[in-house]
Amino acid sequence: MVDVAIVGAGLMGTATAYPLSDNGHRVRLVGTHLDAEIIRRCKEEGYHPRLKRQLPEGVQPYYVEEIGEALAGVQVIVSGVNSLGAHWIGKALAPHIHPGQAVIGITKGLEAGADGDLVILPDVLRSELPEGVRDQVGYAAVGGPCIAGELAGRRQSCVVFGSRQRETAEMLAGVFRTGYYHIWTTTELVGLEFCAALKNAYTLAVGLSAGILESRGGVDAAGAYMHNLAAATFAQSVAEIGRVVEIAGRSPDFAASAFAASAFAASAFAASLPGAGDMYVTSVGGRTIGLGRLLGLGHSYSEARQIMAGETLEGAEIVKVMSAVLPRLEARGVLGAGELPLMRTLIDIIVHAGKPELPLEAFFGGRGWL
Amino acid sequence: MVDVAIVGAGLMGTATAYPLSDNGHRVRLVGTHLDAEIIRRCKEEGYHPRLKRQLPEGVQPYYVEEIGEALAGVQVIVSGVNSLGAHWIGKALAPHIHPGQAVIGITKGLEAGADGDLVILPDVLRSELPEGVRDQVGYAAVGGPCIAGELAGRRQSCVVFGSRQRETAEMLAGVFRTGYYHIWTTTELVGLEFCAALKNAYTLAVGLSAGILESRGGVDAAGAYMHNLAAATFAQSVAEIGRVVEIAGRSPDFAASAFAASAFAASAFAASLPGAGDMYVTSVGGRTIGLGRLLGLGHSYSEARQIMAGETLEGAEIVKVMSAVLPRLEARGVLGAGELPLMRTLIDIIVHAGKPELPLEAFFGGRGWL
Repeated sequence: MVDVAIVGAGLMGTATAYPLSDNGHRVRLVGTHLDAEIIRRCKEEGYHPRLKRQLPEGVQPYYVEEIGEALAGVQVIVSGVNSLGAHWIGKALAPHIHPGQAVIGITKGLEAGADGDLVILPDVLRSELPEGVRDQVGYAAVGGPCIAGELAGRRQSCVVFGSRQRETAEMLAGVFRTGYYHIWTTTELVGLEFCAALKNAYTLAVGLSAGILESRGGVDAAGAYMHNLAAATFAQSVAEIGRVVEIAGRSPDFAASAFAASAFAASAFAASLPGAGDMYVTSVGGRTIGLGRLLGLGHSYSEARQIMAGETLEGAEIVKVMSAVLPRLEARGVLGAGELPLMRTLIDIIVHAGKPELPLEAFFGGRGWL
Repeated sequence: MVDVAIVGAGLMGTATAYPLSDNGHRVRLVGTHLDAEIIRRCKEEGYHPRLKRQLPEGVQPYYVEEIGEALAGVQVIVSGVNSLGAHWIGKALAPHIHPGQAVIGITKGLEAGADGDLVILPDVLRSELPEGVRDQVGYAAVGGPCIAGELAGRRQSCVVFGSRQRETAEMLAGVFRTGYYHIWTTTELVGLEFCAALKNAYTLAVGLSAGILESRGGVDAAGAYMHNLAAATFAQSVAEIGRVVEIAGRSPDFAASAFAASAFAASAFAASLPGAGDMYVTSVGGRTIGLGRLLGLGHSYSEARQIMAGETLEGAEIVKVMSAVLPRLEARGVLGAGELPLMRTLIDIIVHAGKPELPLEAFFGGRGWL
């Protein structure tokens, strides 16, 4: 039995409390400054208003002001803030972090680094920790298809825990694994985080089809949707995720891993739980596919953002990051000018207010053959 | 401009008439003995009752008894019968086939050959043609995500034409390609056909989740579905399709192709239009995912077949074929006993009346790590 602090009382952070509690761990749930009302309900009624569920047995809620108390003596910290909070949580943990603790991130995002590198969020968090401690902490992240409300409902879910240290990944998997929360581990933290972040961007692309359909009169008299277009976009998305994971193998960080030696593994990763599986579940419904639909309807990103006010639009943030990174990767000769045509279309739509037109002829290598 | 005969006036066969007609080709649509009523409506009103559309300009309908007349002088034959009709169409074409003609199959299926090989339908058709002619005919097949009603509605669709002869694939792509029917070619006919057939089987597995959800009380009070379970099954499906395509590389037929040299390509194929793309569109809706739901609800296959009377259940046929093939592949040492756990579950459900229980721990290699 271990003590675990979850920092961030949003849907996914809170959902991890269910397997943790079922395994008999002591769980402390710490809201951010945005979660004060949630924590009040949790303290007063043991009820999480966004998850629409009672908290599981033995979970202790804390306001952000109580974070020092909440973190005292825990072995595991879950980083449950959204992707824009990666620096914040690093700063918030900094005064309290101790050697030997492990931090596992459930947030999906990337930052643009110098030279075209993509920086994963565990590394962003790590950069905010004190120098003397940061190398003595374990870092991990979760990937794979997992809707928070289903995990909290103890529905069968299959995910991947990644850490550069196998023992960290295995220890954490042992802490979280239940009969309904199935966990695979990998030392490919970077590839896992790329898949987790990119799938939010590419799901926007899959969502475009629904908006394009509506803008052209909707389902026709014979009942035809635009599922073929969505499916082609889905396939191109999986292929582009595989390519980005493969390209990442050329950065010094990623090349240090065993995984990078094998282009096959990169593709298989994209075609497994972290890529195709997570793309599938994100495409079934929710805010990301909904934003794609609005863009497909012809709304600009700023209009769409107003319509979806209050939602965290992580997919669009990733597109902005890729917009900064792609020219640098090209300048380094790592990426060809015609590669990732779908990501370039998303950049055009989100960053340059371009029209929602899918460059189908450029898909699948753009040569007309596979 | 060429003369094309489509044999089989079902949804997909007839849908190919739209791009053909739009390209100015002369199209003859030949019903099978099951299509007499459809052909009558086509002849009298130019209307296809199952597609719910007018036939495009210049398409000539023929009854099965008029097949000789319909095939006279055509350069291209589309095999549009269902997967159970591969021998029938070979026999039907045999008296009329000429050297230099090309036959392209739109049917998705496989047969179990001797020694554990999987025989693709173009080879089944070929085996029924006269010996002197069969080597002088071009064979091709279509893969990738394409709902017939959308193609007939001139919705954007991306597909793959495969033929062992590159010139056959390219010639046919030139005949069919339009501004909405985007065609990639490949010489990997076998891999393409494996993906096309297997996706129908694996979509049954993705469909199980909806039935399992219903059998356990449906969506819960907090709104949780079982999309996580479906997504994990989707990812495992893509991985298993890749593995079967890879295994096929060890059969003499497939090894002869350039593709088989590269395990990476096998995985990429499964993760592209033919595998993941087609899985996605088949999972969106229709009879295959619907059959999966019935099985997930606990219906036996024979009960489900009665409920869906009149539908061609190609996914279940593929599962039966794999049931015959797997023990032979194991005996040859090509397949390990623990491999393809999801296909084994489908075999258990469909062939042995087993329960719809997904062996999640055996997914993704079954070792707990990726």
